[in-house]
Amino acid sequence: VPQNLTFSGFSASLPIIVGVSGGADSLCLLGMLHEAGYSVIAAHFNHKLRKESDMDENHVRIISAQMGVLFVSACADVKAHALENGLSIEEAARHLRYGFLFATAHKYNAQAVAVAHTADDQVETVLMHFVRGSGLAGLKGMQLRTILPPFDPEVPLVRPLLGLWRPDTESYCNENGLSFVVDASNADQAYFRNRLRHSLIPELEGYNPQFKQALFRGAQALQGDFDLLAEVVDTAWKKSVAEAVTDFVAFRQAELAAFSPAMRRNLIRRGAFMLCQNARDVDFAALTRASAFVEIPGTGQVDLADGLFLYHENGLVYLTLDEAGLPLDAYLQIQSEFALENDKFDLGNNWILYVDEVDGGDLLEQAKHNDDPFTAWMDADLMAGRLRVRMMYAGDRFQPLGMDGKSVKLQDFFVNAKIPRRVRKNWPLVVVNDEIAWVMGLRLAHLYRVTGQTKRVIRLQVTKK
Amino acid sequence: VPQNLTFSGFSASLPIIVGVSGGADSLCLLGMLHEAGYSVIAAHFNHKLRKESDMDENHVRIISAQMGVLFVSACADVKAHALENGLSIEEAARHLRYGFLFATAHKYNAQAVAVAHTADDQVETVLMHFVRGSGLAGLKGMQLRTILPPFDPEVPLVRPLLGLWRPDTESYCNENGLSFVVDASNADQAYFRNRLRHSLIPELEGYNPQFKQALFRGAQALQGDFDLLAEVVDTAWKKSVAEAVTDFVAFRQAELAAFSPAMRRNLIRRGAFMLCQNARDVDFAALTRASAFVEIPGTGQVDLADGLFLYHENGLVYLTLDEAGLPLDAYLQIQSEFALENDKFDLGNNWILYVDEVDGGDLLEQAKHNDDPFTAWMDADLMAGRLRVRMMYAGDRFQPLGMDGKSVKLQDFFVNAKIPRRVRKNWPLVVVNDEIAWVMGLRLAHLYRVTGQTKRVIRLQVTKK
Repeated sequence: VPQNLTFSGFSASLPIIVGVSGGADSLCLLGMLHEAGYSVIAAHFNHKLRKESDMDENHVRIISAQMGVLFVSACADVKAHALENGLSIEEAARHLRYGFLFATAHKYNAQAVAVAHTADDQVETVLMHFVRGSGLAGLKGMQLRTILPPFDPEVPLVRPLLGLWRPDTESYCNENGLSFVVDASNADQAYFRNRLRHSLIPELEGYNPQFKQALFRGAQALQGDFDLLAEVVDTAWKKSVAEAVTDFVAFRQAELAAFSPAMRRNLIRRGAFMLCQNARDVDFAALTRASAFVEIPGTGQVDLADGLFLYHENGLVYLTLDEAGLPLDAYLQIQSEFALENDKFDLGNNWILYVDEVDGGDLLEQAKHNDDPFTAWMDADLMAGRLRVRMMYAGDRFQPLGMDGKSVKLQDFFVNAKIPRRVRKNWPLVVVNDEIAWVMGLRLAHLYRVTGQTKRVIRLQVTKK
Repeated sequence: VPQNLTFSGFSASLPIIVGVSGGADSLCLLGMLHEAGYSVIAAHFNHKLRKESDMDENHVRIISAQMGVLFVSACADVKAHALENGLSIEEAARHLRYGFLFATAHKYNAQAVAVAHTADDQVETVLMHFVRGSGLAGLKGMQLRTILPPFDPEVPLVRPLLGLWRPDTESYCNENGLSFVVDASNADQAYFRNRLRHSLIPELEGYNPQFKQALFRGAQALQGDFDLLAEVVDTAWKKSVAEAVTDFVAFRQAELAAFSPAMRRNLIRRGAFMLCQNARDVDFAALTRASAFVEIPGTGQVDLADGLFLYHENGLVYLTLDEAGLPLDAYLQIQSEFALENDKFDLGNNWILYVDEVDGGDLLEQAKHNDDPFTAWMDADLMAGRLRVRMMYAGDRFQPLGMDGKSVKLQDFFVNAKIPRRVRKNWPLVVVNDEIAWVMGLRLAHLYRVTGQTKRVIRLQVTKK
């Protein structure tokens, strides 16, 4: 009955690696693919977890030989692997088994790894996700064809029996003289999945006799929705995300704001789950707030939930758990105080400060009309030998050049200069007796400017390598 | 605790109609909105289905009076309404109740109808949809704010308590001295929803103690997905659908083919469900087939499932259950035979046929070189008085002009002329003694052409009004 194969996009030439446990599902898969004329290789992974393990392996070896199909097998210490990697036994077994199957696919230049998940497995998987409150990614269930990048970026995992119910695979085996093993642990209700299978699903069939069929079809529809959503959100993500790393996601504000609120909510939600896998409280209300916040650039921030917040900066909207992780290399930042002499200072983040003293002359005119904030010309006689670089103090005040000696709070000066709050506390300030002479890269102090009385100047230049 | 209101986008001025049954949920809602300073009107619909119905109504009237809130009520014969409209009692009750609430909203120029669905109701709703195998539209659950066009196109239905659990509403009532009625039928496990509430949900909590919370949050996430999908599919639908009526959906082929396969699958799926609400077998494989079919215009058709099929025609892709419903007005079609004389004939669909006889002269030259398929010049002496218009017979053959008298099957001629199969059987054929002289609008027969020997011509012209 090879027409029962739900997935059939195979080529006739390259082999297919079939994962065969020895149960009815996997022997049915092996038999159907073989019968359909494909080149199949039976691959058995011996988990060595049950006393029958070696017998099962031998059983698959014999059936394969009877079919005239190449048989390969492997085993590994599942318990040790679980322990080493902090995995459950099931997770460790799956990890080792898939590793073996894809390694075999690589070795034999196979077109695919085929596994024998049935419609019953699909229903159990979807139900398991439902009970856990999964989103679309879980509720859509398993796919007919998928790529598992950790195992192989190109060879697909396919599930040709996904449209077949488990009893059909047993009938196939019986009709085709394939004796199959029965895993006694499948009846063990200590396993979550087995409890679903033997207890919860029959209960749900009491509410809807067609429950399994209905759920199976529902999952198919969700798969279509999932594909489309993944596609449109991916496209929008690529368009609007400038950088996405462990500590933050930086959206380009204009692009993000140009999307509809629903798309913005989805993008911010995706970002939130990337930064914080348990972002449980990122709900509709939070996303609606965030979606409104990103529309208009400003200096504030908005809390999302779970410690996540959003933040405007230089045409970007940062989503982060902690601003400490945001990129600083755009900004002048120091970690400790130091005295200034005529020298070259590495400020970190590729910023270099050069200090030299110059005798008056032609340079004086240039100094008086300097409007490059990254260069400061100061009257050397007013400060020579007393220059230090320090970080801001609470209550710091400052007389910015061009304001006729008016004093402002440094804090307010930073706000007006649109310097993000997070980079203010480590901003380098050149001081004379603790009085601010130059907010580096931003503004000289009125008092220390070059005037007609100036004889000698100190030139400070900060540049990015 | 008005900060517990999950929806709070109300204006301060216009009243809110609150549906109040007298249970804890609805009294809590009434109390919270009143406490928050909104202008509320308590609206009670008396279903008259239980012996306590009148007592409940009176209870709500008294509480409303105590609060100083306007009280309105109505009742109707739910059973009769159910019988008349083929509805279940629950459906009929809901229909009448919502009708009353929105009529009241209209009367008092209210900003919204508020109902007291809680997080528990949300979980029960989602679970009910899950058991039935619903797609995203069901699994996303109820929305905080929604428009119900059958009741009112503008006034929204809002659910301010959707984030509150049922026990919290009871606590609120107890703390605020609001005595509430307990609907005895809520415990009746004959009702599907009550069985979910009292039996299935506790069972599911055995699998995941946080089941309700998890499901509630899952639904929130799905709501975001649903909003975005609805938006992008709507946009694509408007762009690619030329016409959508009961019998068919006509997509513009070029626009449809320009979308990604995932979007095409979604559009075709949406169309399928519009035409056939139980389109259960429109699965991934069928949609993938359909999605590939629409890419390249052709003459064939592809079966989708459930009797639905797709069909290329004149730059459109039709999705239909039955081609009888497709539009015909683009085509020449007749319903019965008739004899032709010099006259004017209304062929229907705004097509008019003019017949007149002309003496030779200058017109003969024009007739010999005619290449307008909507005009036929025939040698009058070969046919005068014997012209009829009929529909095709099985096996009809024809000697198309320009093929040196070669005879072809009319069927093949239609195929080459890209005439859709469905319009062939009623295509008008002008015949002489049952022999085809003119396939109207397409080609003259070789034998009846105007030649050097022709003395008189008959001119047939078919035009669209």
